[in-house]
Amino acid sequence: MAQNIYDRPEFFEGYSRLDRSVRGLDGGPEWPVLRALLPDMSGRRALDLGCGFGWIARWAASQGAASVLGVDLSENMLARARAETADPRVRYLKADLESLELPRETFDLAVSSLALHYVEDFGRLVGAVSRALVSGGHFVFSIEHPIYMASVTPGWLATEEGGRTWPVDHYAIEGARITDWLAKGVRKQHRTLGTTLNTLIDAGFALRRLVEWSPTPEQLAAQPSLAEEMERPMMAIVAAQKSSDRPRN
Amino acid sequence: MAQNIYDRPEFFEGYSRLDRSVRGLDGGPEWPVLRALLPDMSGRRALDLGCGFGWIARWAASQGAASVLGVDLSENMLARARAETADPRVRYLKADLESLELPRETFDLAVSSLALHYVEDFGRLVGAVSRALVSGGHFVFSIEHPIYMASVTPGWLATEEGGRTWPVDHYAIEGARITDWLAKGVRKQHRTLGTTLNTLIDAGFALRRLVEWSPTPEQLAAQPSLAEEMERPMMAIVAAQKSSDRPRN
Repeated sequence: MAQNIYDRPEFFEGYSRLDRSVRGLDGGPEWPVLRALLPDMSGRRALDLGCGFGWIARWAASQGAASVLGVDLSENMLARARAETADPRVRYLKADLESLELPRETFDLAVSSLALHYVEDFGRLVGAVSRALVSGGHFVFSIEHPIYMASVTPGWLATEEGGRTWPVDHYAIEGARITDWLAKGVRKQHRTLGTTLNTLIDAGFALRRLVEWSPTPEQLAAQPSLAEEMERPMMAIVAAQKSSDRPRN
Repeated sequence: MAQNIYDRPEFFEGYSRLDRSVRGLDGGPEWPVLRALLPDMSGRRALDLGCGFGWIARWAASQGAASVLGVDLSENMLARARAETADPRVRYLKADLESLELPRETFDLAVSSLALHYVEDFGRLVGAVSRALVSGGHFVFSIEHPIYMASVTPGWLATEEGGRTWPVDHYAIEGARITDWLAKGVRKQHRTLGTTLNTLIDAGFALRRLVEWSPTPEQLAAQPSLAEEMERPMMAIVAAQKSSDRPRN
């Protein structure tokens, strides 16, 4: 079972104070890119993996989605999501992404924001998502970038030239990374970008886009602290599509 | 025009002493992965971009390729390639990958080993390769990994724990990187992995594989100095296929 860090009080309290928890989607500077990679929501049956407070689920419904299923493991997150959701097209399900099973070909798209890097068995989940999507269905997600996550001692280093640089080590050694973020002992799962993309391809997805997110000039001007995101990507955003196109030889 | 570093005497002399120049394909530890991503060569018309001494071109012919065209800008490299090639199915062409044009749909596959990170206008070249390939044609190449290339001060850093880590900075800032490798002032072109893959997708390729190369346990045992390749990838290997599969919405 996945670590349920969001139900630890100190983590949940810290998380609830983040800009993206208070302001919602507009508090995540990568949201415009993720949104642009999503298909038109009109009439779609959407699945949100790691839905948290339900911001994306409610947004999808507001854009005309026929139905939205938000899945999360955290009681805390789901309680607030349910309390803030009036739209009957949005439902929530408490489930572990390590073992989630879904009915076949019942969703037009799956979305996930900064959740899948907590999942240990990514291949199993991607298989479940692939089966749950209709042919041509979209899978769009953001994850922490492996450049950000690989090192066993992550954190800025000063350069001799007076700049800052980000350490990358143990990149090829996949598996758990334990960090202290909002609480001690948060467990994430490091995977190379190659593994992430090849897992999708092997499950029948065609890659449509890989964005190693960095801020726009306008975002940098409005929020100068984002400048560090030009140095190393903190997030990767992937758009894939379930395809019947198989390799030819 | 691309920098023709291989025709500078000090660079060429240094390059000629590298394991991969002396021993050929077996001197490149990533060769087994690149080879495994190539299709069966039998009867294929192959294109090698940045063919250097012609090792891959001659290998392709030995595997039954119908014809191989090796392209390089370096007179030095091509002179040795021609001197070492007896097979009439292999031809060489002196051309700049920045401006190379090719006849339409005349190749079954294109391969490139550690050359495309010198190319400034990658989008132009990928377009030319796409047009030159038949539908279903393969494009398989290795490049220096952007993790390896991004920093303006590349080189191992010691960690407080007694290990080593690789610096990543300026990742989102694409363009020239000047390093001293074999000679002073070698100019490479940094691109994010996202840009590399999205450029292929936009030119009509389907991504088949991304390998962020690291050594096998057997390679590590035989050559312990390769251990640093577990810390950060030096090379990315990409396999793509020209596809008629276009995004659906």
